[in-house]
Amino acid sequence: MTDGTTPTERLTAFSDAVFAVIITIMVLDLKPPAQATLSALLPLWPAALSYTVSYLFVAIIWINHHRLSLFARGATPELIWWNFAHLFMTSLIPFSTAWIADTKLAAGPVLFYAAVFVMVNIAFLGYQQEALSQASDSEVSPTIRRLTQVRALITLGAFVTAAFVAYWSPLSGFGLVCCVLLIYLRPQVPGEGLERNAHRGHLKSIRDAKEETS
Amino acid sequence: MTDGTTPTERLTAFSDAVFAVIITIMVLDLKPPAQATLSALLPLWPAALSYTVSYLFVAIIWINHHRLSLFARGATPELIWWNFAHLFMTSLIPFSTAWIADTKLAAGPVLFYAAVFVMVNIAFLGYQQEALSQASDSEVSPTIRRLTQVRALITLGAFVTAAFVAYWSPLSGFGLVCCVLLIYLRPQVPGEGLERNAHRGHLKSIRDAKEETS
Amino acid sequence: MTDGTTPTERLTAFSDAVFAVIITIMVLDLKPPAQATLSALLPLWPAALSYTVSYLFVAIIWINHHRLSLFARGATPELIWWNFAHLFMTSLIPFSTAWIADTKLAAGPVLFYAAVFVMVNIAFLGYQQEALSQASDSEVSPTIRRLTQVRALITLGAFVTAAFVAYWSPLSGFGLVCCVLLIYLRPQVPGEGLERNAHRGHLKSIRDAKEETS
Amino acid sequence: MTDGTTPTERLTAFSDAVFAVIITIMVLDLKPPAQATLSALLPLWPAALSYTVSYLFVAIIWINHHRLSLFARGATPELIWWNFAHLFMTSLIPFSTAWIADTKLAAGPVLFYAAVFVMVNIAFLGYQQEALSQASDSEVSPTIRRLTQVRALITLGAFVTAAFVAYWSPLSGFGLVCCVLLIYLRPQVPGEGLERNAHRGHLKSIRDAKEETS
Repeated sequence: MTDGTTPTERLTAFSDAVFAVIITIMVLDLKPPAQATLSALLPLWPAALSYTVSYLFVAIIWINHHRLSLFARGATPELIWWNFAHLFMTSLIPFSTAWIADTKLAAGPVLFYAAVFVMVNIAFLGYQQEALSQASDSEVSPTIRRLTQVRALITLGAFVTAAFVAYWSPLSGFGLVCCVLLIYLRPQVPGEGLERNAHRGHLKSIRDAKEETS
Repeated sequence: MTDGTTPTERLTAFSDAVFAVIITIMVLDLKPPAQATLSALLPLWPAALSYTVSYLFVAIIWINHHRLSLFARGATPELIWWNFAHLFMTSLIPFSTAWIADTKLAAGPVLFYAAVFVMVNIAFLGYQQEALSQASDSEVSPTIRRLTQVRALITLGAFVTAAFVAYWSPLSGFGLVCCVLLIYLRPQVPGEGLERNAHRGHLKSIRDAKEETS
Repeated sequence: MTDGTTPTERLTAFSDAVFAVIITIMVLDLKPPAQATLSALLPLWPAALSYTVSYLFVAIIWINHHRLSLFARGATPELIWWNFAHLFMTSLIPFSTAWIADTKLAAGPVLFYAAVFVMVNIAFLGYQQEALSQASDSEVSPTIRRLTQVRALITLGAFVTAAFVAYWSPLSGFGLVCCVLLIYLRPQVPGEGLERNAHRGHLKSIRDAKEETS
Repeated sequence: MTDGTTPTERLTAFSDAVFAVIITIMVLDLKPPAQATLSALLPLWPAALSYTVSYLFVAIIWINHHRLSLFARGATPELIWWNFAHLFMTSLIPFSTAWIADTKLAAGPVLFYAAVFVMVNIAFLGYQQEALSQASDSEVSPTIRRLTQVRALITLGAFVTAAFVAYWSPLSGFGLVCCVLLIYLRPQVPGEGLERNAHRGHLKSIRDAKEETS
C-alpha cells in the first residue's frame, strides 16, 4: 500500500511544515522601527531576545522530533494524536513569545511562557514514549530508554521550576529557561547513548555512500 | 515517468502544506493581551476555545485525508478537483473561527461556522468517493464502503443540525459540533473495518521492519 | 548522488510549499465583519468573489505545473530560474486580489489584476518550453507540443484582452478572466493529447498497482 | 533505519518549507494602495524594489543550498546547527526588507540590510564547509573546494563593503548589493568547476532517463 515510503513519512512531513510556519510566523512580530536610525533598533531588544530564545527552542524541538521519528515504524493513532498534541502546544509559542516581548519580560507573561514550555514537554514525552515503544531492543537498549526518560523528566522539572521562579523574578525564570536550552545544544551529554547510536547509524550510511562513489 | 514515487504523492504533499498553513494561521488571531497579568488571559476564552475546536477539526480532517489517500492510486482530474474543493472549504475555517471568537459565539457566526463544517464535509465526501473508487475490493470490502459512507452522512447530518440549532441557541449548536468531533477522536468505533484494515497494513510493515533490524 | 529521488523533486516540493502559502495567505485578507449577523457577510462579496477567482487561478497554475513537471527530467539552471520567475509573478496574486477586493473591482486595480495574470502566463510559457524540451518525442509528439503552445498563447491573448477591456469596463474585463479560467477547468479540450498521454501514464500505474494487490 | 531515503532529506525538506514561508511572507508587506488608480502604485516603488531584490537573494540562497545539499551525506549535528543558523539569519530578511521599504532606503536601514546579508553569508559559509567535508575528493576536487571558498569570501567582502558604503551613501550601498546578486545569476563564472560537475551529474541522469523511456 505504501511501498517505498515509510508509513510515518507523511506525518513527519506535515509536522515539518507546521514547525516551519511556526518558526517563521514569529518574524512577523518583529516590526521595523518607525525611525531610520540604527539606534532605533535598541528598544527592540525584548522582541529580539525572546524571538531568538523561541527560535532556539523550536530548533531543539525539531531536532528531537527528527531523531525520535527515526525509531517510529508506523503512524499509529496514538503516535498521530500525541504528535498533534505536541504541535498544538508548540503553536502557542509565537503567542507567548509576542506577549513577553510586548510586556518586556513581565512576571505573568514569563510564567505563562515557561508553562507553554512545560506543556510542549509533556506532549513530547507522550510522543517519545510511543515512538520508542515501536523500536526493538537492539536499536534502543533498556538503559538508553531509561536515560532518555530521565533526561526528559529533568528538563520538565527545570521548566516547572522556571515557571515558579518567574512569578517572583521574571528575569531569573527566563534565564533558567535559557540555561536549559543551552544544555540541550550539546545533546550528547545527558542522553549520550541514544545520540551516539543514532549518530553511528548516520556515520555508517555516510561511509557506505562514500565507498559507493569512490 | 514517476518511477519510485506514487502518482498521488505530490497531491498529498501539497495538501499537507496547505493544512499546515491553515492550522498555524489561526494562531495569528490569538493576540496577546495588553496587560501583563495572568488574569488578562481570561477574557481570551472565546478565542482559546474556538481555536482549540478548529484545531481539533483540522487534525481530524488531516487524519481522514491521510487514511483515504492510502487507497488512492492516481492523481486523476476528479481527485485533484475534489481535493481543491476540500482545501478551499477548509481554508475558510480560520475566517469563521475568528468571527465566532470576536463575537463571543453569537448566533449568526456560529451558524456560519457550522455551515463551513458542512461544506468541508460535502467536499470530503466527493474526495472519499473518488479515492475509494480507485481501491480494489480486496482492500476495501463493499460492507466497509457502505459503513464509511454511512458514517460520513451521519456526520454531515449532525453538522447540518448544529447549524440549525445554532440559530436558536448558539451555545447548543457549538456544543453539538464539539460532540461530533469528540466521537471522531475514536475513529475505530463507527468505521471500524476500514480503520482496522489500514491499521493491519501498518502493523504488518512495522513487524517486517522489526524483523529486518533484529 | 540522488538515487531514488528525481532531480527535480526538491524544485517541485519547494514550489508546492510556495503555492500552498500563497493560496492560504489570501484567506488572511478575509477579515470577519464586526457585526454578529449573517447579513453582515453580504458587503464582503467583492472579497469573497476575488478570493474565489484567485484561488481557482492558483489551483489551475498548480495543476499545469504538476503536469509539466512530470516531463522535466533535471533541475537545470534555466528550469530553476523560469520557475522562480513564475513563483514571483504568482506571489503578486494576493496583493492584486486584495486591491480589487478593497476597491470593489475598480478599473485600475482590475487592469493590474489582469496584467499579473499575463505576467504569470509569460513566466509559465518559459517554464513550459524548458520542461518540454527535456522530454523525448515518444512522450510528447510534435503535434502535442504545438497544440500546448497554441493553447498557452490563446490564454495569454485572452488575459491581455481582459486587461485592455478592464480599462473601459472593469466588470467585463473581470468576467473575461473568469471565462478563461472556466475553460481551463476542462483541460482535455484544447490540449487534449498532452492530457490524455499523461492520464494514460497514470491509469497504467493505477492498473499495475491494482494487479499487484489483487 | 532510513532505507530508501537519504539521511539529509528531512533537513532539506524542512529548510525548503522555511524558505517558502520567508519568500512569501514578504508579500504581506506589499499593502495595496487606498486609491483605485494605477498611478497610486508609483509611490510603492521602494517596497517593490526591495521586495524584488530580497526575493532574488532568497532565490540565490535556495539555489546554493540546493546545490550543496547534494554533497552532504548525513544530517550531522554540525550540519543541522549551521543550517539552523543559516535559516535564522535568512528569516531576518523580511524584517530588514520592510525597514528599508518603509524608510525609502535610508542610510541606517540599508546598512542593517547589508549586515543581514553578511550574516546570512557567514552562516552559509559554515554550512558549506560542513557539507563539502562530507563529499569525497572524486566529487569535489581540492581546486574546486578552494575556488568555492574564495568565491564565498569575495561575496562576503562585497557585502561588508556595501554595509560601510551604505553609511555614507545608502543608494550606492544598495546598488552594490544588487551588483553582487546579478553576478550570482550566472554562477558558472566564479565557481565554474563545482557547477559544471553538479550539472554533469544532472545531465547524466537526464540522459539515462531518456534512454529508459525511448
